[in-house]
Amino acid sequence: MKFCTLCGNKLILRIPEADDRERHVCNACGHVHYLNPRIIVCAIPVWEDRILLCKRAIEPHYGLWTLPGGFMENDETTQNAASRETLEEAGASIEVHDLYSMFNVSHINQVHLCFRASLTSPRFSPGKESLEVGLFSRDEIPWNEIAFATVESTLRQYFADMPTKEFPLKLGDVIIGPDKRRIIRAHNFIHDES
Amino acid sequence: MKFCTLCGNKLILRIPEADDRERHVCNACGHVHYLNPRIIVCAIPVWEDRILLCKRAIEPHYGLWTLPGGFMENDETTQNAASRETLEEAGASIEVHDLYSMFNVSHINQVHLCFRASLTSPRFSPGKESLEVGLFSRDEIPWNEIAFATVESTLRQYFADMPTKEFPLKLGDVIIGPDKRRIIRAHNFIHDES
Repeated sequence: MKFCTLCGNKLILRIPEADDRERHVCNACGHVHYLNPRIIVCAIPVWEDRILLCKRAIEPHYGLWTLPGGFMENDETTQNAASRETLEEAGASIEVHDLYSMFNVSHINQVHLCFRASLTSPRFSPGKESLEVGLFSRDEIPWNEIAFATVESTLRQYFADMPTKEFPLKLGDVIIGPDKRRIIRAHNFIHDES
Repeated sequence: MKFCTLCGNKLILRIPEADDRERHVCNACGHVHYLNPRIIVCAIPVWEDRILLCKRAIEPHYGLWTLPGGFMENDETTQNAASRETLEEAGASIEVHDLYSMFNVSHINQVHLCFRASLTSPRFSPGKESLEVGLFSRDEIPWNEIAFATVESTLRQYFADMPTKEFPLKLGDVIIGPDKRRIIRAHNFIHDES
C-alpha cells in the first residue's frame, strides 16, 4: 500500500492522532487507510447423511477438496454469502441454518465462518472454480485431500456431532506450526486429528 | 476509491476476467482492489449479575451507552479484539468465553460479533473513547440510551438467557426501516422490543 486511493498521493506510515498504531496515512489529503481482516464464509450442505464437497479448480490447493465457500462481499449477509458461494461453486441450492464453526486465521488476516445448511434437492454441478462436486459420507470423505485446516476440522466435528443431532458452535484458531503445517487450536471442543 | 494503492494510477470500474461483478481495477498495473465487509467485535463483560457498559465519548452516538467493542484489527483474533477493546475503552481485564451474537449489518458492510466474557476483577475506568464506565443489572440498564441496535438486542437476549444459564448463539440482521430506524431481523431467537 503506497498511494492514496482518494487523491493518488504518497502514503506514509504514522500513528494518527487519537490512535495507537501505525496506519497508512496520506501526506496530502490526510486520509487514513485502515487494513482489516476479511471474512471467508462456507456452507456445510447436507443431503441425508452426506456432505457436498467441491474439488478445487483454482489455486491455492488446486485439486484438493473443500466445502463451498469464499470471500464475503459487500452488500450481502454472511448467510447470503454461504448460499451464493454454494450456487457458484457447486451449482446447488441450500437452506442456511445456524453458524457451526468460526476460526481465526490471523496469519493471513482472515476469519472463517461455516454454516450448517440443507441441500434443497440432490442436484449439483461444478461451477468454474470446481473440477468436480460430490456428496460424501464420513467414510467416503477424502480425508487426506482436504484443502484447508478449518474445513477439515469443521467436517470432523460435524460428523462427530451428527449422531447427537446437536451442533454447538465450534471456536478455534489456525496457527502455523514449526514445520509450517497449519495447526488447529480449539477453544471449546476437542480437536480430533485422527 | 479512485487511485491504485500500488502504483498511484487511475482506477476504472470493470468486471475482471473470471469474476462476475464490477471491481475497482487499475488501468496501468492491472491490480484488482476488492472491498469487503469489516468485523466489529464487542465483549459482554459480566461481574456477578451485572454487565459493564461504556458511555461513548466519540461519534457516532456520543453520550449513549454501548458494550466495549470496535473494529477488529489485522494480526489479532476475534477474542483478542474483544479483550483489547475492553481494556482500551473500559480499562478492564476480561476472560473471553463463547460467541453470543452475530449480526449482519449489510447497509454499512459490517458484521457485529459479541462474545460473553467475565471481568477478572470489578476494576474499570473510562478510556479516552468513553465518558463513563459502569456495571448495570437488567433493571439499571439505560434502555433508551443504548447506542446500537445490535448491542441493545444482545443485552436484552443476554438478560433473558441469564436465569437459564444457557447462552445459545443468536443470529440476526440489522435492516433499515421505512423511518430510517434500525430494525432487528432475528434468525434464531425471538426479538424482544419491550
